Amino acid sequence: MAKRGMLIVLSGPSGVGKGTVRKALFEDPTVDFNYSISMTTRQPRDGEKNGVDYFFVTKEEFEDHIKNGEMLEYAKYVDNYYGTPLKYVNDQLNAGHDVFLEIEVNGALQVRANCPDGVFIFLTPPDIKELRNRLVGRGTDNIDIINKRIQKASKEIRMMQNYDYAVVNDTINNAVSQIKDIVKSERLKVKRVMPDYLTSLGDDI
Amino acid sequence: MAKRGMLIVLSGPSGVGKGTVRKALFEDPTVDFNYSISMTTRQPRDGEKNGVDYFFVTKEEFEDHIKNGEMLEYAKYVDNYYGTPLKYVNDQLNAGHDVFLEIEVNGALQVRANCPDGVFIFLTPPDIKELRNRLVGRGTDNIDIINKRIQKASKEIRMMQNYDYAVVNDTINNAVSQIKDIVKSERLKVKRVMPDYLTSLGDDI
Repeated sequence: MAKRGMLIVLSGPSGVGKGTVRKALFEDPTVDFNYSISMTTRQPRDGEKNGVDYFFVTKEEFEDHIKNGEMLEYAKYVDNYYGTPLKYVNDQLNAGHDVFLEIEVNGALQVRANCPDGVFIFLTPPDIKELRNRLVGRGTDNIDIINKRIQKASKEIRMMQNYDYAVVNDTINNAVSQIKDIVKSERLKVKRVMPDYLTSLGDDI
Repeated sequence: MAKRGMLIVLSGPSGVGKGTVRKALFEDPTVDFNYSISMTTRQPRDGEKNGVDYFFVTKEEFEDHIKNGEMLEYAKYVDNYYGTPLKYVNDQLNAGHDVFLEIEVNGALQVRANCPDGVFIFLTPPDIKELRNRLVGRGTDNIDIINKRIQKASKEIRMMQNYDYAVVNDTINNAVSQIKDIVKSERLKVKRVMPDYLTSLGDDI
């Protein structure tokens, strides 16, 4: 039986740049873990592709998945559903592959409750002012939505305490490099490698 | 007040190559933490220098340090004392510098009890046969001492469970690179950075 893979969760406030960092991460040819594509009912943004950035589905389709127990986590966020289909994640982990999720903070808490052995990374903006500038600069949301998001993000930044690591999204390269460091380091955790050592040493001791 | 530094502890069975890995690590110009030189009563090996590799002292001097409470940890190992003078470590940590110890497994357990927030790295040989080959190859110890060490190491490898990370000393470069990854990653731990974020965000929320 293959050793079970490691679950890596990247989360953080809306607008912090999770999607951009995740994209840059998976453009890096040295990255050797698999991206679990999220499912959402929100509209695609410019350049986003179905089955690449998200599985874009209708509200009805998403609610069917929930009913059928086919979601690892999901959350409703500014009137849209976001979530992680369960099957892909389980198949990959069972085959011994590490799996990377990029999800909303509510979803991350659900995953943490179910998979305490996962690696939970919080992507954080340098500060709230910077986050506001980014949301305004993106130009895809009206001021009410931006204000709602800022308010929510203020609370969310304090949710950092529910994560293992905090990565500041100051530059995309820094964030990507730090996430790679975290994954490399987590693979050396005694709790993850101990079973292998005991097996391999058994004959000699 | 400067943020307190992080304590990094490298330990592992005698003969696994802790000293060689530590030396290679501190020859790396990107390493930005400080080495706390250990104190020992054992004889210097070829090429080892007092005040660089160890503080080489007499048994009486070492026991005076113990009596005066001037040791962070110490252990008697194959009839010699090994230990860490307390003052240097405290001064560095208080000044906000990260400090690296390379110590024996008994000492590491003492440090873990006193500094649970430290980062504990276990350097392990690929297997026990490989360890025996290394001790024999080193040619500095007689067969009785080697057998004593192998027996001790078999127990010590199981002590891996008292550490946070396991690094295999398959090649020195790999081991050095993995220790650097661990340190970079540990600096991103929420428990270490959270206080800073709360302070910096306080005005904006």
